[in-house]
Amino acid sequence: MINETYKKMLQGKSVIRELSEYATERGKEIGYENVFDYSLGNPSVPCTQSYTDAVIRLHQEAKPSTVHGYSPSLGIESVRATVADSLKRRFGVPYETKHIFMTSGAAGAIAHAVRCVTKPGDEVLTFAPYFPEYNPYVNLTGAVLKVVPANTQTFQINFDAFESMLTENVAAVLVNTPNNPSGIALSTETIQKMADLMYAKQKEYGHDIFLISDEPYREIVFAGADAPYVSKFYDNSISCYSFSKSLSLPGERIGYIAVNPKATDADIIAIMCSQISRGIGHNCPSSSVQLAVAKVIDETSDLSVYETNMNLLYNALTRIGFEVVKPGGTFYIFPKALEADAVAFSKKALKYDLILVPADGFGCPGYFRMAYCIDTEKVERSIPVLEKFAREEYGLKF
Amino acid sequence: MINETYKKMLQGKSVIRELSEYATERGKEIGYENVFDYSLGNPSVPCTQSYTDAVIRLHQEAKPSTVHGYSPSLGIESVRATVADSLKRRFGVPYETKHIFMTSGAAGAIAHAVRCVTKPGDEVLTFAPYFPEYNPYVNLTGAVLKVVPANTQTFQINFDAFESMLTENVAAVLVNTPNNPSGIALSTETIQKMADLMYAKQKEYGHDIFLISDEPYREIVFAGADAPYVSKFYDNSISCYSFSKSLSLPGERIGYIAVNPKATDADIIAIMCSQISRGIGHNCPSSSVQLAVAKVIDETSDLSVYETNMNLLYNALTRIGFEVVKPGGTFYIFPKALEADAVAFSKKALKYDLILVPADGFGCPGYFRMAYCIDTEKVERSIPVLEKFAREEYGLKF
Repeated sequence: MINETYKKMLQGKSVIRELSEYATERGKEIGYENVFDYSLGNPSVPCTQSYTDAVIRLHQEAKPSTVHGYSPSLGIESVRATVADSLKRRFGVPYETKHIFMTSGAAGAIAHAVRCVTKPGDEVLTFAPYFPEYNPYVNLTGAVLKVVPANTQTFQINFDAFESMLTENVAAVLVNTPNNPSGIALSTETIQKMADLMYAKQKEYGHDIFLISDEPYREIVFAGADAPYVSKFYDNSISCYSFSKSLSLPGERIGYIAVNPKATDADIIAIMCSQISRGIGHNCPSSSVQLAVAKVIDETSDLSVYETNMNLLYNALTRIGFEVVKPGGTFYIFPKALEADAVAFSKKALKYDLILVPADGFGCPGYFRMAYCIDTEKVERSIPVLEKFAREEYGLKF
Repeated sequence: MINETYKKMLQGKSVIRELSEYATERGKEIGYENVFDYSLGNPSVPCTQSYTDAVIRLHQEAKPSTVHGYSPSLGIESVRATVADSLKRRFGVPYETKHIFMTSGAAGAIAHAVRCVTKPGDEVLTFAPYFPEYNPYVNLTGAVLKVVPANTQTFQINFDAFESMLTENVAAVLVNTPNNPSGIALSTETIQKMADLMYAKQKEYGHDIFLISDEPYREIVFAGADAPYVSKFYDNSISCYSFSKSLSLPGERIGYIAVNPKATDADIIAIMCSQISRGIGHNCPSSSVQLAVAKVIDETSDLSVYETNMNLLYNALTRIGFEVVKPGGTFYIFPKALEADAVAFSKKALKYDLILVPADGFGCPGYFRMAYCIDTEKVERSIPVLEKFAREEYGLKF
């Protein structure tokens, strides 16, 4: 009596995963240094020495029962207080301990937030291009993910489409800025307009519409980008954070939910999350990892390599003739493919050992994603190869 | 539009948690050393030095991207291989890497296993007394937990009740041995009889009935106890393990599922779990914790204090006149209260600063649980207090 719903999920293969596996196999043949693997969003810079030192010191000096004892489902209270204090100080939103719920990265944060503010059958809107894992996060709660088509001119929000899709059935909007896969940060103007529209629709429909903000790339913002803190613009908002990218700790599965103190039921949403976590058996992130990130709460790894790589790639791609919007953050760039079928395009690129991810799965066919969280030296070596590919396969002259 | 189902869960308060909080508060008044706190199952012995050393060495010597990089949802492959090899060597069941799924402790293991082998509306049977968290683990999947009444003579299985409840609607049986809260290990004879009955019913109904075995106390077995490895007796079985008690790491949230290689769909259950984990946003336990437990896979903390404490308490309780079955493992003992209402009994005990948990929530009213994962010195000091309590409140002579 194997559950057929979950069994069917086995058929949905991840294109990113397939390409990454191909890159690994190809690397065994020709040396991985010769594969220009832009497939995976795995941070290339190490975590801070201060994080490593904090872990070691905790294990050397603290009582084992403090480091490894049960954490409350909500997270360790002192850690939650540290998170609240840091957010309040940095972004001016008056979070308190009770608004913070520690999670297994942003994935856990989003899955819990969606469960809290929707009921089965409700719609959750997100904006293309979007992270494909939003499908399981939302759909396994019983809510239904609907995708607002992209504004491919700027990758800000397509407001005509958003307004027409923001019907009475919508319980939540899931936004990701800076964005995976486009690299674009939503501007102050965009976020204000989104908030205004949501306030108007809340009033019109007479029910809450929550804004769930997925923010793993919050700390990776490039010079000149306008990338404000989303929750400042809208009361019914829940920030979902992960230390995966800012501290290069993706495997540690550590992040949090921060509930806007002005949200409806702001005082119980975190506790509801802790009840939900009991039911799914997650409970809480590792106690030692919670304690260690709290020690370095305002720090990040040296993230400058991502901006260096972005500038190299953006300049090269535009020179070659790609249509591409300059990223404001993250470690992704999102050019238009050189033919309508981005899957065919990516397949041709494989002949040049260029691993490019077609964006069909991100809800934006015809585009492709490059994850440039790789060594700058490799980015530099990849540019003549990109040129050769564009010239030989598509006859581009530049 | 806060989800009302999860909101309602906030009303279900945990008696254990309330008593534990009371004990902490009372400790502030009279000194915690004077509160005989038998409420919480938090291991009292430290993790092994070898575990601490493994964590420190990983952080000092391994590449950060190895220690903190993304783990596959299934768990790190080398860790899964180490687990499979250890189980095969120790228990003779031929597990391979593909049968292992790394989880957030036994809680995550059970929640995933239940989702895999049931569909909404299916029944899952468990045996009283049982761990109350089984309710959210099972009920949030859409399946329905039903509790087979206890055999209070021996706390082995009440087979008459089990047989009559093992109807066509049952998709899985959830068993916990050694048991929280009774401390009893199911004997070879009991497990064999349970397996025989389940085989017969599978044949009669023409569908699988899975046995989900919750084993966080597997390594805490006392001299003379007959406590065999459950999955050896039944093909459609899934072992759910946690390192919380054996290595005293409850806060690290680390455990696994081991699917019996002879189970129906044995080769896909672990992969299904990894798909489910995407949907609930859990993904996998901490990468560094996975790597560290693999380094000490066959070790345990010094667990001997639990047997020392058990013997002290068992001898005292029987001498005083309590009806109690001698535990075969764990760090729990489960006597009959001295009046029918165990809640009233526990309330009276508070006057003596004895924190005893009434077993109504464990599906066994009239009994109470003592978690003796505390210092032996405190157990010794508690005995005259238990005597005084029994004498003064219930007029026992001994």
